[in-house]
Amino acid sequence: MPVNLSAPDAAALLPIAGVRIGITEAGVRKAHRKDLSVFLLDEGTQVAGVFTQNRFCAAPVQVCREHLAGGQPVRALVINTGNANAGTGADGLARARATCEALAGLLGLPANAVLPFSTGVIMEPLPVDRIAAGLPAAIADAQPAHWARAAEGIMTTDTVPKAFSAQAMVGGKTVSVTGISKGAGMIRPNMATMLGFLATDAAVAPAVLQQLASQLAEASFNRVTIDGDTSTNDSFVVIATGRAGNAVVESIDSDEGQALYQALLGVARLLAQAIVRDGEGATKFITIAVEGGRDAAECRLVAYAIAHSPLVKTAFFASDPNLGRILAAVGYAGIGDLDQTGIELFLDDVHVATKGGRNPDYREEDGQRVMKQSEITVRVGLGRGDASDTVWTCDLSHDYVSINADYRS
Amino acid sequence: MPVNLSAPDAAALLPIAGVRIGITEAGVRKAHRKDLSVFLLDEGTQVAGVFTQNRFCAAPVQVCREHLAGGQPVRALVINTGNANAGTGADGLARARATCEALAGLLGLPANAVLPFSTGVIMEPLPVDRIAAGLPAAIADAQPAHWARAAEGIMTTDTVPKAFSAQAMVGGKTVSVTGISKGAGMIRPNMATMLGFLATDAAVAPAVLQQLASQLAEASFNRVTIDGDTSTNDSFVVIATGRAGNAVVESIDSDEGQALYQALLGVARLLAQAIVRDGEGATKFITIAVEGGRDAAECRLVAYAIAHSPLVKTAFFASDPNLGRILAAVGYAGIGDLDQTGIELFLDDVHVATKGGRNPDYREEDGQRVMKQSEITVRVGLGRGDASDTVWTCDLSHDYVSINADYRS
Repeated sequence: MPVNLSAPDAAALLPIAGVRIGITEAGVRKAHRKDLSVFLLDEGTQVAGVFTQNRFCAAPVQVCREHLAGGQPVRALVINTGNANAGTGADGLARARATCEALAGLLGLPANAVLPFSTGVIMEPLPVDRIAAGLPAAIADAQPAHWARAAEGIMTTDTVPKAFSAQAMVGGKTVSVTGISKGAGMIRPNMATMLGFLATDAAVAPAVLQQLASQLAEASFNRVTIDGDTSTNDSFVVIATGRAGNAVVESIDSDEGQALYQALLGVARLLAQAIVRDGEGATKFITIAVEGGRDAAECRLVAYAIAHSPLVKTAFFASDPNLGRILAAVGYAGIGDLDQTGIELFLDDVHVATKGGRNPDYREEDGQRVMKQSEITVRVGLGRGDASDTVWTCDLSHDYVSINADYRS
Repeated sequence: MPVNLSAPDAAALLPIAGVRIGITEAGVRKAHRKDLSVFLLDEGTQVAGVFTQNRFCAAPVQVCREHLAGGQPVRALVINTGNANAGTGADGLARARATCEALAGLLGLPANAVLPFSTGVIMEPLPVDRIAAGLPAAIADAQPAHWARAAEGIMTTDTVPKAFSAQAMVGGKTVSVTGISKGAGMIRPNMATMLGFLATDAAVAPAVLQQLASQLAEASFNRVTIDGDTSTNDSFVVIATGRAGNAVVESIDSDEGQALYQALLGVARLLAQAIVRDGEGATKFITIAVEGGRDAAECRLVAYAIAHSPLVKTAFFASDPNLGRILAAVGYAGIGDLDQTGIELFLDDVHVATKGGRNPDYREEDGQRVMKQSEITVRVGLGRGDASDTVWTCDLSHDYVSINADYRS
């Protein structure tokens, strides 16, 4: 059961002119699952992406980077679940390329106009034959209104599809933004989430779109964590079809650039937080805000130490205000000259610790009250500067263990 | 149920001349638990210690450092369970000092001849009155033969006491070594484990004993991890009473120094590994050996990334050879220029991955066979140098979640 998150209303998702999406059941790993999606992009569409920093990055990630660097306009995406095509060596690269060739052949495009994405089990050979056999049905299914189906088509251990839309005025024109994501486990994005796709009909210069993609990833997907495991396949793609009729956005810092960025960021944050709300076994949505640091980087160190501590996460699961575990995580986060007597700790509005010790006014029942909520904010004051940063995470429950002990069976 | 570890045979543990140990039930947190231990040390005994690097180090850790730095000979240790006296600010420091004063008063010693140790819940006030009231009974109980009782007296969520002995010839004399430890959770020592005490009757120069303590911690307690949570209270103490009659060991590098080091190391490693075997919810004992690194530090980065991955740990729990999760952890360990095509992966004798991809000869049933064992060695070759290092850890089971969701109740 995800935390305060339900399936999107398909009718409320905005189609993006210039983007058509088709889904089919290709039997990649199991029969009768929507496991193959294609995005067909009109001519003139700009595409930018950011990808995992895992050194064991998957074959499709390597091919995406190569195709984007080549400068050939991207006209199609192909996405399979059930198999990550990671840890597959040279053979995996060949299979990722063969997938692109199969789709490009059907569309009359060069192979490097296609970006491939895979998610699922690591170190198994990708069944290219079954994917290629499924492509004609996926192309035949392609419609602008298929965003909700696409959100379903990229799910793995997710329990609900994730999709959001927004609109903004950019240079006097209404532009639309729609995005989808998937997550659930192996989530500690380091550049982007497992899979996130965001499209707008705004017209954006290519260099600006890449800047937008990096800034968006940094402020959304790169601030969530479920289990600290950075995936081999993290990919976040921003698509701009240019069909809204606005003058091309030439700078992020212009009024138009900022209006577009805020609309994109709103959707990207909802998508990233949706991944946490639907984290494997999650029962609580936790915001960890660290302030008073010398720089944002040390605030993140502390926030991630808290977010990754199995002891803190199991205490949230149990609604147990065993809050000394949070202080312990602050202490081992890696700030070598941290002075414990400067530390303040709040749980929502409850002032738990002051000057590194228990706040004399803190009462266990106040901590208990907040711990029982499904949404909790942990606020840590480091007392050594003006910087701050925020990370979103979830608790660690029996279901996380069950899901990951049973994942392949 | 610990992994291949049973309670020590009290009769097989060697008493150490010059050390007497007494235990009592002081009701620190709950009634009818052996929760208070004292070590009484004869005059002439040398004591060295290493302590947690957690910046939220507990009050007793701060007092231990202060007393050891002062140079006053240490004549007694006082150890309580049920309360960690961490995250307790200035009041916690005062209570740790009051504990030392209470024991010193009963023994006719200065307060700084006592080292205090606490383990248990964080951010609760230490009940000094109950501890002081229990001290006379603990002193009355003191006997050289009480090592097994001491191992029991320092337990928290441990399921079996941990104690080992060894003997060595040092300068023509037989010296004895006996040690105890506790662990179970919040275990990722960074200088030492939660609590470890090692005593020998060898005569050792004070500076050499401190060197020995640091080297021993580095090669034993600092190489185990259960959940990645570095405790606020980690303390490892080495006691040398000098009663074996050997000439004082003046250098670690001498034949005598090495003979003593190896005997101490044997016991320290068994104690450290015993903590993993009895890790909270542990069902498997995992050795992670990383070789072919440029230096030992990068081998440790990789070993800890594997050891801390919740996905890898749940796969071990499930006996599921979902070994791509290990490659993913290698990839995000933090070696920025790691070349995935140089990576080799073995599970015991089974060659799972070669050149960064699945070994063509690898068969799932071979991986399955090893994963079902209670003791497993993961060997990773980085293919970029001659350095290596090893870390010991356990799996992540439902019981870890249960134990930590219920710890305070």
